[in-house]
Amino acid sequence: MSEMGLVVVGAAGRMGQVLLRTVHTMEGVRVVGAIERSGSPHLGKDAGELAGIGIINVAISDDPLAAFAKADGVLDFTVPAATVEFAGYAAQARIAHVIGTTGCSPDDDARIAAAARHATIVKSGNMSLGVNLLSVLVEKAAQALGPDDFDIEIVEMHHRHKVDAPSGTALLLGEAAAEGRKIALAEKSVRVRDGHTGVRETGTIGFAALRGGSVVGEHSVILAGTGERIVMSHLAEDRTIFARGAVKAALWAHGRKPGLYSMRDVLGL
Amino acid sequence: MSEMGLVVVGAAGRMGQVLLRTVHTMEGVRVVGAIERSGSPHLGKDAGELAGIGIINVAISDDPLAAFAKADGVLDFTVPAATVEFAGYAAQARIAHVIGTTGCSPDDDARIAAAARHATIVKSGNMSLGVNLLSVLVEKAAQALGPDDFDIEIVEMHHRHKVDAPSGTALLLGEAAAEGRKIALAEKSVRVRDGHTGVRETGTIGFAALRGGSVVGEHSVILAGTGERIVMSHLAEDRTIFARGAVKAALWAHGRKPGLYSMRDVLGL
Amino acid sequence: MSEMGLVVVGAAGRMGQVLLRTVHTMEGVRVVGAIERSGSPHLGKDAGELAGIGIINVAISDDPLAAFAKADGVLDFTVPAATVEFAGYAAQARIAHVIGTTGCSPDDDARIAAAARHATIVKSGNMSLGVNLLSVLVEKAAQALGPDDFDIEIVEMHHRHKVDAPSGTALLLGEAAAEGRKIALAEKSVRVRDGHTGVRETGTIGFAALRGGSVVGEHSVILAGTGERIVMSHLAEDRTIFARGAVKAALWAHGRKPGLYSMRDVLGL
Amino acid sequence: MSEMGLVVVGAAGRMGQVLLRTVHTMEGVRVVGAIERSGSPHLGKDAGELAGIGIINVAISDDPLAAFAKADGVLDFTVPAATVEFAGYAAQARIAHVIGTTGCSPDDDARIAAAARHATIVKSGNMSLGVNLLSVLVEKAAQALGPDDFDIEIVEMHHRHKVDAPSGTALLLGEAAAEGRKIALAEKSVRVRDGHTGVRETGTIGFAALRGGSVVGEHSVILAGTGERIVMSHLAEDRTIFARGAVKAALWAHGRKPGLYSMRDVLGL
Repeated sequence: MSEMGLVVVGAAGRMGQVLLRTVHTMEGVRVVGAIERSGSPHLGKDAGELAGIGIINVAISDDPLAAFAKADGVLDFTVPAATVEFAGYAAQARIAHVIGTTGCSPDDDARIAAAARHATIVKSGNMSLGVNLLSVLVEKAAQALGPDDFDIEIVEMHHRHKVDAPSGTALLLGEAAAEGRKIALAEKSVRVRDGHTGVRETGTIGFAALRGGSVVGEHSVILAGTGERIVMSHLAEDRTIFARGAVKAALWAHGRKPGLYSMRDVLGL
Repeated sequence: MSEMGLVVVGAAGRMGQVLLRTVHTMEGVRVVGAIERSGSPHLGKDAGELAGIGIINVAISDDPLAAFAKADGVLDFTVPAATVEFAGYAAQARIAHVIGTTGCSPDDDARIAAAARHATIVKSGNMSLGVNLLSVLVEKAAQALGPDDFDIEIVEMHHRHKVDAPSGTALLLGEAAAEGRKIALAEKSVRVRDGHTGVRETGTIGFAALRGGSVVGEHSVILAGTGERIVMSHLAEDRTIFARGAVKAALWAHGRKPGLYSMRDVLGL
Repeated sequence: MSEMGLVVVGAAGRMGQVLLRTVHTMEGVRVVGAIERSGSPHLGKDAGELAGIGIINVAISDDPLAAFAKADGVLDFTVPAATVEFAGYAAQARIAHVIGTTGCSPDDDARIAAAARHATIVKSGNMSLGVNLLSVLVEKAAQALGPDDFDIEIVEMHHRHKVDAPSGTALLLGEAAAEGRKIALAEKSVRVRDGHTGVRETGTIGFAALRGGSVVGEHSVILAGTGERIVMSHLAEDRTIFARGAVKAALWAHGRKPGLYSMRDVLGL
Repeated sequence: MSEMGLVVVGAAGRMGQVLLRTVHTMEGVRVVGAIERSGSPHLGKDAGELAGIGIINVAISDDPLAAFAKADGVLDFTVPAATVEFAGYAAQARIAHVIGTTGCSPDDDARIAAAARHATIVKSGNMSLGVNLLSVLVEKAAQALGPDDFDIEIVEMHHRHKVDAPSGTALLLGEAAAEGRKIALAEKSVRVRDGHTGVRETGTIGFAALRGGSVVGEHSVILAGTGERIVMSHLAEDRTIFARGAVKAALWAHGRKPGLYSMRDVLGL
């Protein structure tokens, strides 16, 4: 069987469950291991049954090393401490390690980079193919259409329960635009417009946040010039896109030489 | 000739020129008078030639009463003091008076209302057919889809030279939504979202302003519920829409009994 | 307990399951009965357990009359023959009957109307609050902005698996626009534009269909005039909106006098 | 004076007039020559006065060679035969030649290429910066997001007077997408959807055309995947964007070594 065998770590958590269901629906991959922390009440249960996709004959275990030894790759949306440990095991097993974990410290990142001498690691703060592509396109557009001619605005909408603004993805897109323009986002971003604002300052990047309903997440980057506009948008319909992107990254990493890669590499850009 | 004869007041000003050109392109109307203030350097010139549409044999004059006596209606985007005076003359002539003038005081409005006993007056802060229709639709939508189920957000974009935010039209649409919900906009509007905002408060109306390029003016009102959204937008391509709306209002008012009307009446809603 | 007690008919079907889950999440309603046809393998099972929301102590039964007698309303997305029968039972029980069933013949409709002498029936081809509101707004807009000034276009996007075009909802919106214009849609609709089309014919209503990905359903109605546009859109994020609309209709119908109502009545428009 | 001196050819034509006005408003360039064909009634007139920007002391002439000898570049939206001739003169004068002329035959293109050994030529079927950038972004996106995962749809809207569909720019964007996918557009494009269409065929590129009002031109390219979409749009507000793009191309070409370039080179992509 030529399918890529994947281990899901944090298998009983919310994202672990999404990963199990997503692998189940995609071609070329199958679940061969499911890991939870020692002491989890779910140890020994069938991972598929827990995820609502039926029995897949993979028991949830607390022994990652044994699971990695029989696998081709690992899908990991856990926490920094666990991820650093898993990276070490992936290096020992010489397999692919896809990391969607956020909040890693510089020290964590250094240890992950060390593991990447033997593991094929893909790490990104946002695993969606679409968002990663958009950030590349935004960087190119911001570079090609300069600040004297085109103003950049970023607007996003999320559900009513989101507690911060702008979204992390809006800031990520702002960083991409700033990178294209060779400017520092922090010095050029305009986060509030209310009352007498004066004319728009050349070279700034504006942000606006809408909140309401059950919107999963929509982002638009606008480059507005004299007589014409470019608008680049990403619309997320559900949260499985992060799991799908992780599986795509695993398939891309399979058999590739060790190293630390990003989703941009996966996209071939 | 059954065309409606119109007088443009403030004929040499920026909006007066747009009005002259717009009347020229529309059916059922023609310019029969053009008024400027006493002392204007343009008195005696041909109004059409000044507006770049060729000679129309209408000299710019400073005698409104004489002009109104030979006309069916007046198009007026001037200033409150002049508008109040013109309303009196329109009442004497018993013709239609379309008022796009902004900034009238309660006293000005009272005098205009008095003139409307004999003149057929249509007055609106925004003469665009589309914006007026949108405000009616927004009011109905906000009434039909209640605050427990649908969140209201208003986002607008204008050119980089606009110095205030949100736009007057965005606030007008917010008032329409508040009217539909029977709430006071001032108590329920959210004008800034930045940093830790907490979850969205039920029943509020959010505003966001984008600025860039040469965008004439775009407004969207979003009603976001669980699993679905209604979005109602108005896109302005150029500034002639205010002049076109004024001409439409004049045609609607022609021969109608005296009174004070709004663009909603013109729209038949 | 003042919650409205609802019976879900066709409880083991796809839409029945969505209804059960939706009632479970909404306030002011609870499931008090679940009906399937005689011979269904699901008879006797707990309806909640089958729907994945846990045991609710409502066994699936094939006796609608007994269930209706203890209920305040019925949610029905089944087939015409069953719906006609359920309408009769609802009349006997003098309760509300919300009908999302499609494909009823004139004869079915006549029998449903007869039942509405004693039952409070709400029937609609599309139970989404948003789509029903949009159709009202489109009718008003098409009426207010006439064919000489504004062209109407309707564009929709659905997932790649949809096999027909334009969507039923696009046609429903087209009918609403035609109603506002007092024209026959069939005579004025333009369904294809490819190659040399000539200039747009005044008064027509154009349709365009996009297909791709997993888009649940998005519809936009555009009224395009000289210098300005109105765009009215409905965006569906998931299929629960039909169930939610049905529950809203039931709550509206509760205690109201018998008759045949539409979702427009529910919206208060 | 370090401004770039430009000659406008076809100066009395519609696009020539737009070019004269656009150069007048932009920094770093000025009009130093204006050419019309022998026998034109406009020969000898001041080019600025004819274009409505006031006297600029440049008489319209029918001697391109003399004009080119004193200039740094030529802006040319004429016809193929004239353009080929102008390219020869630009080569003699060793200046920049910006060509927005459409409809060139392979033989015309060969002669233009020959002239590019001595002239710095920028040639494009669409001189808008935004459309050219969008086509680059579309190609990259179509390449990164493959046909098994993402469906491509292209929708455009133009004014009611446009007589063909889809627009040339929509087809240009379709070609860019096809190039990214390494497919032949003609074999994979879907130009009509009406009635029973069946499920969407993998790998196709769909087109839809909306017509109405005075819309200058709007194009959107949608990549629709499972759970997410990328939408890339270009919105044209007026027709001066082609003139602005041509001036940008001239400034870019100024002092650059001879060769045949495209707007992609100007954009630095």
